[in-house]
Amino acid sequence: MVAGLFTSATYAATHSVSSPDGKLTFQISDDHSQPSYQVTFNNKAVINPSRLGFDFARAPSLRDGLTISSTQRNSADERWQQPWGEAREIRDHHNELVVTLADSQSKQAQYQLRVRVFDDGIGFRYEVAHDSARYITRELTEFAVADSDKATAWWIPARGWNRYEYTYKTTPLHDAAHVHTPFTLKNKDGVHVSIHEAALVDYAAMTLNQRRPGTFISDLTPWSDGIAVKTNGQFNTPWRTIQVGAQATDLLNSRLILNLNEPNKLGDVSWVEPGKYLGIWWGMHIGKNTWGSGEKHGATTERTKEYLSFAAEHGFDGVLVEGWNTGWDGDWFYNGDVFSFTEAYPDFDLDAIAKHGEQVGARLIGHHETSGNVSNYRDQMADAFALYEKAGVRQVKTGYVADGGNIKRIDERGHARFEWHDGQFMVNEYLDNVKLAAKHKISINTHEPIKDTGLRRTYPNWLTREGARGQEFNAWGTPPNPPEHTTMLAYTRMLSGPMDFTPGIFDMSFNGLGDKTNRPQTTLAKQLALYVVLYSPVQMAADLPENYLARADAFQFIKDVPADWEQSIALAGEVGDYVVFARKERKRGKYSGKDWYLGAITDEQARSIDVKLDFLEPGQRFEAQIYQDGPKAEWKHNPYDLSIEKQIVTAQDTLTLKLATSGGTAIRFKAL
Amino acid sequence: MVAGLFTSATYAATHSVSSPDGKLTFQISDDHSQPSYQVTFNNKAVINPSRLGFDFARAPSLRDGLTISSTQRNSADERWQQPWGEAREIRDHHNELVVTLADSQSKQAQYQLRVRVFDDGIGFRYEVAHDSARYITRELTEFAVADSDKATAWWIPARGWNRYEYTYKTTPLHDAAHVHTPFTLKNKDGVHVSIHEAALVDYAAMTLNQRRPGTFISDLTPWSDGIAVKTNGQFNTPWRTIQVGAQATDLLNSRLILNLNEPNKLGDVSWVEPGKYLGIWWGMHIGKNTWGSGEKHGATTERTKEYLSFAAEHGFDGVLVEGWNTGWDGDWFYNGDVFSFTEAYPDFDLDAIAKHGEQVGARLIGHHETSGNVSNYRDQMADAFALYEKAGVRQVKTGYVADGGNIKRIDERGHARFEWHDGQFMVNEYLDNVKLAAKHKISINTHEPIKDTGLRRTYPNWLTREGARGQEFNAWGTPPNPPEHTTMLAYTRMLSGPMDFTPGIFDMSFNGLGDKTNRPQTTLAKQLALYVVLYSPVQMAADLPENYLARADAFQFIKDVPADWEQSIALAGEVGDYVVFARKERKRGKYSGKDWYLGAITDEQARSIDVKLDFLEPGQRFEAQIYQDGPKAEWKHNPYDLSIEKQIVTAQDTLTLKLATSGGTAIRFKAL
Repeated sequence: MVAGLFTSATYAATHSVSSPDGKLTFQISDDHSQPSYQVTFNNKAVINPSRLGFDFARAPSLRDGLTISSTQRNSADERWQQPWGEAREIRDHHNELVVTLADSQSKQAQYQLRVRVFDDGIGFRYEVAHDSARYITRELTEFAVADSDKATAWWIPARGWNRYEYTYKTTPLHDAAHVHTPFTLKNKDGVHVSIHEAALVDYAAMTLNQRRPGTFISDLTPWSDGIAVKTNGQFNTPWRTIQVGAQATDLLNSRLILNLNEPNKLGDVSWVEPGKYLGIWWGMHIGKNTWGSGEKHGATTERTKEYLSFAAEHGFDGVLVEGWNTGWDGDWFYNGDVFSFTEAYPDFDLDAIAKHGEQVGARLIGHHETSGNVSNYRDQMADAFALYEKAGVRQVKTGYVADGGNIKRIDERGHARFEWHDGQFMVNEYLDNVKLAAKHKISINTHEPIKDTGLRRTYPNWLTREGARGQEFNAWGTPPNPPEHTTMLAYTRMLSGPMDFTPGIFDMSFNGLGDKTNRPQTTLAKQLALYVVLYSPVQMAADLPENYLARADAFQFIKDVPADWEQSIALAGEVGDYVVFARKERKRGKYSGKDWYLGAITDEQARSIDVKLDFLEPGQRFEAQIYQDGPKAEWKHNPYDLSIEKQIVTAQDTLTLKLATSGGTAIRFKAL
Repeated sequence: MVAGLFTSATYAATHSVSSPDGKLTFQISDDHSQPSYQVTFNNKAVINPSRLGFDFARAPSLRDGLTISSTQRNSADERWQQPWGEAREIRDHHNELVVTLADSQSKQAQYQLRVRVFDDGIGFRYEVAHDSARYITRELTEFAVADSDKATAWWIPARGWNRYEYTYKTTPLHDAAHVHTPFTLKNKDGVHVSIHEAALVDYAAMTLNQRRPGTFISDLTPWSDGIAVKTNGQFNTPWRTIQVGAQATDLLNSRLILNLNEPNKLGDVSWVEPGKYLGIWWGMHIGKNTWGSGEKHGATTERTKEYLSFAAEHGFDGVLVEGWNTGWDGDWFYNGDVFSFTEAYPDFDLDAIAKHGEQVGARLIGHHETSGNVSNYRDQMADAFALYEKAGVRQVKTGYVADGGNIKRIDERGHARFEWHDGQFMVNEYLDNVKLAAKHKISINTHEPIKDTGLRRTYPNWLTREGARGQEFNAWGTPPNPPEHTTMLAYTRMLSGPMDFTPGIFDMSFNGLGDKTNRPQTTLAKQLALYVVLYSPVQMAADLPENYLARADAFQFIKDVPADWEQSIALAGEVGDYVVFARKERKRGKYSGKDWYLGAITDEQARSIDVKLDFLEPGQRFEAQIYQDGPKAEWKHNPYDLSIEKQIVTAQDTLTLKLATSGGTAIRFKAL
């Protein structure tokens, strides 16, 4: 049986705060002594009244019996700089409301809700002042989507074995059961919304569970002992974020997540190096080489030297080498204890490689694969970073491959515990790794990571991460990434931050062409466009050097494109269908800071897109170097047909981009 | 990144045990010191190798490092009697294998797996011998469905706000995310499987989470503090059950769940009374009466006396009266503290009603609605049962209406805790209620219950329960139950045990006819057939007396049909499409034990079904009293067209049943 709802008239306080442009409004109420909030955009409901609060393991819940006892208001309009990023300057323009919730009887303050409303979205967080340690068992924050029966959602499942590495589903919102964030949806008015979180520190990741139709409740990923979050006195939650835009591209142009993170805590980070890299990596994925030792061992001194020379010659900054350290022979996937992070295989001479890199002008990129055994890694981490620092390594790719819920740690009693990648324990573990790396002036590219929540602002050496199905699934995934995958990523995963997708596969026929086999399901032009569309401050050229040399014409774009930007603008697109990005290079090294780049990609539908070039500086002439799908290009059987043209353009021009099925366009606008 | 699987050749022990008919086989292996099991049926895989084990909050996991140290084998072929039920005699015929898993190093036994294989399915349970209290955080039991990409599943979501009260979904098995049991599926060979559990006592309910495609892992509903199960020394889990059949009806004819429960622990249960009842209940659902006091108060002395008289006159055993006790005025849904379980509203005179019932020969059926506040109920429970016992009440309907996860209890510190209906706390709470009721010779009909796992065998006063979307959803559900709902229930919810669905709505036009309004989406004949199809030892005639008097012809079937059976046979059907049941009445009171009944129902498709009557005793002549859809019947606009015919039949005859859209056929075979 269910029962009808009853209401009784009680006095309730409501307070609201709107965005600087007045369009977005957050309202909080203590009706029935039960705090709840709602959100409107252009005077229409986006989030219906939604509950707030916590349950604790031993302390009383913060659910009801709570009244608003005081409020504070602030506002800010500031600009701050990123040391690297998708944009140099970020504007932080918001209005703030801080609401104190007190026990209705005792009048004692229980928590504050700090709310910041920007033009592009809302963030709110709990600030709980209790000074005793508490165990949170549930966070009760709800997101009750308005008119949810008419909304569409794009999502991947939470608490799955494959972490974040799923293809995105497009469904009626009501069919999204338990999802990861960023969670993107479109309501009946065409308003696009993304629910996520910012500044996830010392807390569990928030997943969203659709408990009632349209109402998602925060579902914190628990510790192995069932507790959601272990606090040690006063605590703030991460910011719960709701990005809102009239169109899909508004979400892509939002800087909300960064704005809600703390400023840089590392001081001088001139040692953090964005850039492009190659790797002894793809060969292992397609079976040409092995991680483990033996005849096909990929990580040899000789091959690494060759790669370093090739990298330097073609303007790349580094070379990732996986499988260099002992432990890869045998059941490493099930037993991370086998890995040494300081002992190289005999055929890998770190000193010689470091010296060679210095000579030719490209750096070795380090690799730490834990296979999810974090205790083994932690024991060796300081030595491992020291070793790399000594060898001139400035960047390490870490790996935590293990089934979801199967990160192995040894607890204080010596027992093995199995944790989730996105529980509080691992949230802390990932950040500890980044902090320790910073002491060695090493930057981190995390694979099988915790999702991004904008912490690169605070810890700029956390360059990028995986956290979605990357290119590697095209080597052996079942199935490989479908044509819509990267157009989907742009509106979902990429809202959280940079991704090391590893674009640039030129030989798409390693298993044959067609759609029934493992291969990138794209055209060659789309592989190029991904360098602009999928932002990462370190971008891999993932294929083998010989495949680049075979297509030197297309390779030129990868050699030209930067990985650090002065400015980024999403120009057009629809979720999962297509997207067009323009980005202006940032002045750094060989880059003058004057050129613009454009990337456009489409799903399985070929399409023609008119792009006004009004983002270019007025009066400035540019040579547009256009890499686009040739007239016969289509991804299944003819992915290589590429047309490269040059034309002179200005801000007054419009270009018509013609994208093949799963095609793309990549353009360098070279300032003349 | 994911990694390929590595295998290394290690010595592994495997042991298997097969069903008495040899078709069904369970095999256990300790390959890689990692216990796993698999299941075959007719030599084809049904369950692929699936892991076993536990994680604990502080003690070491029982995951791996385990080796089979000894085995025992037993077999049984026994028959036992039910005091009431869908069949009087049950055959328990199985082969048993008990496997001891020991620590591979220390050789110390860690747990036993007790496996019983019947012709109709498999049960296995863990028997953990550790004598210290342990907190289970995860049970690792997997069910890896073979050829899962070609399987179909029927399911409701687990951990939802509406408990078990969802419409069933039919999807590819891979689309079932997190589901309740019984979980029914059909594999590519047409083999039907239902995964469930038996004898859920002092443990959390098992839900199933599809972690990898096709692999479901046990997901125990946790306590509010995140612990799954709190054990106190040695413990046995409930039986994990896998019912397997070559066709859908095999699942319906399985007695596996009952066979895996313990025998009756209550001794003489002659005071447990199956039967039929009316209620002051439907009037509240359709807005004619109210639970609360006032002009429209349903539970008045006068109305109850009228109902008792009507019940006795028409051969019913009891009358349920809801809203008799104080507390229903106001916000009871959010505040279960308001309910008294001993104080009647002034217009409800329990003594006078009890006396009237005794005079006319029908009993009052009691009602305890907790609105999920179990501490308030527990405080009053003994007094409440004593009061009813004194008034001659033999049966109480309990209610626990509250959102999933919102059962409120007051813990030992005086704090409110919010529990799931199917966590260990409530599993114990429901059973405590039944045990205390037994001391007062009262039987229980639980609404918003824990799912059934066959405990009626051990506690025969636990007569029936809700635990699915019942008839009430046709009064106000959004949407009401679709035409396929009851055909779906037969193959899903009903596999767990009896359900108080409350059939028999005769006025289906209370909100108008058509499919866009709340109303039963069935024909009248289907309402009759539900008494045979949906087994419950107490069956309600849910409509108002005046509606029965207006269709005395149809009402005759409800008056005739028993609620207790000598034998039951599912004759034909497909999941969610249709089902035909034959049941033979059990000798009890006015029932001679000679008549048979048949119920057939269909989904939105009209259909014709040939039924061989070879279940009837050979040589015996019967008058078949056939209540079937009339020639113009269809559920949307013409549900009332009913044809009633009589004909003489024997076991050699075949009847052709013609079912209208969402129609049915109900037959009494009166022995001549």
